[in-house]
Amino acid sequence: MIKSSTVKRDLQYLEISSDGARHTSKGSVAIEHTLTIFVNGNPWVTLFCSPSDLTELALGFLESEGVLKDMGEVEDIVERQGNVWLKLKGQVQSPAHAITSGGGRSSLRELDLDPVPLSERVKATRILELARRFEDSSEVWKVTHGVHSAALSDTREILVFREDLGRHNAVDKVFGHCLMKGSSPRGLFLFLSGRISSEMVLKAARRKVPLIASLASPTDKALELAQRLNITVVGSARDERMRVYTVPRRIL
Amino acid sequence: MIKSSTVKRDLQYLEISSDGARHTSKGSVAIEHTLTIFVNGNPWVTLFCSPSDLTELALGFLESEGVLKDMGEVEDIVERQGNVWLKLKGQVQSPAHAITSGGGRSSLRELDLDPVPLSERVKATRILELARRFEDSSEVWKVTHGVHSAALSDTREILVFREDLGRHNAVDKVFGHCLMKGSSPRGLFLFLSGRISSEMVLKAARRKVPLIASLASPTDKALELAQRLNITVVGSARDERMRVYTVPRRIL
Repeated sequence: MIKSSTVKRDLQYLEISSDGARHTSKGSVAIEHTLTIFVNGNPWVTLFCSPSDLTELALGFLESEGVLKDMGEVEDIVERQGNVWLKLKGQVQSPAHAITSGGGRSSLRELDLDPVPLSERVKATRILELARRFEDSSEVWKVTHGVHSAALSDTREILVFREDLGRHNAVDKVFGHCLMKGSSPRGLFLFLSGRISSEMVLKAARRKVPLIASLASPTDKALELAQRLNITVVGSARDERMRVYTVPRRIL
Repeated sequence: MIKSSTVKRDLQYLEISSDGARHTSKGSVAIEHTLTIFVNGNPWVTLFCSPSDLTELALGFLESEGVLKDMGEVEDIVERQGNVWLKLKGQVQSPAHAITSGGGRSSLRELDLDPVPLSERVKATRILELARRFEDSSEVWKVTHGVHSAALSDTREILVFREDLGRHNAVDKVFGHCLMKGSSPRGLFLFLSGRISSEMVLKAARRKVPLIASLASPTDKALELAQRLNITVVGSARDERMRVYTVPRRIL
């Protein structure tokens, strides 16, 4: 039932429990793919998605956007090297620049970021304690079960906590708060309620945030990027346990 | 702790259990807001978000996008009627058209859709049975806990089931599948693993889909739209119970 291309299996991580027990374990993460849809030769949109059913995704997206009504308008459609090229019969006014959206909204130009310094260290029990406090802080989630949250911590306190319908919005709010206060988030840790995607790693790297911890799981591309940018990724940080996927040397 | 503006309280819904018990109940849903960020007089982006901390969100978003580095570049920032106007000191090349993203990617031009016909009816127990099958179908979720799923059903079978990292992508895939097969989704029911936001209602309305059922919760704006477009919204469809928020007359 599972298309093998959508899951990366046997990925190694370090599992740490609140009683101090550590062991290496293996699990699966979702694969994150970057799909560009070209319409009549021009890039129309870039989506962060799972790498399956890309032609369906391109067609459904363009129909959702009102660009396309039925297959009669499609002269040709080709999936090649993970991208989709559509030739439509009529004239289509293409967007003046490629929109990047889907999972999120980050620009690909952010890919030239520098690695984060390795100076910060933190005890595993601190991360678990902060994750617990972070989860407890989400009052809106408790009553609606319909929002995400993000927070920054100096490892002692949750310094700023924000919620939003959108995963990206919650993160942008905490960093926007730092901008307004004139307080740099450099060296602070980012806590998330939702998935750690590549865009979250890029948002952290841009601010020199060395560690991202989430109640949920990371994607494969997030882990590749985090490894390259020296960012420690902690997933499934709940129920007295967490998984350290990248740069475990920050965790004492 | 909760800013009252982010939660709509005492919203009435019909709770139906698999044993046939029905009662009217009340609960809270997350409020969905449409924020347009203007930079130097031009609309930069429209985000679907929670209606709190909009100035922080605008600043954090522009920093994430690399448009802004610190507050020294900001000459003026004003939040007015739910939108944010920024005046930046330097010249900024604004996007040639407003990007719509955040929670999702739908264009606002979709708001002129017609209501869906009221002809379809379905037994409550069928919806609960289908929701159970839908949840069981998510093989990728079971191993990664990092994807969303969407499906279409004729009330007897799950006809098409797709998964993706992105909530919107999963839905676009199932509708893209219908396009490719030349089979109309008109009258079919949409099942979702994630939040029912206004954009999901618009995607359904565009295809004349009369019912959306989710394992998760709806937003207030989704419910307003669904009411206007005659779409039945079922939330929290799990553990032998579900909540019918709009157009309950479709549920027998």
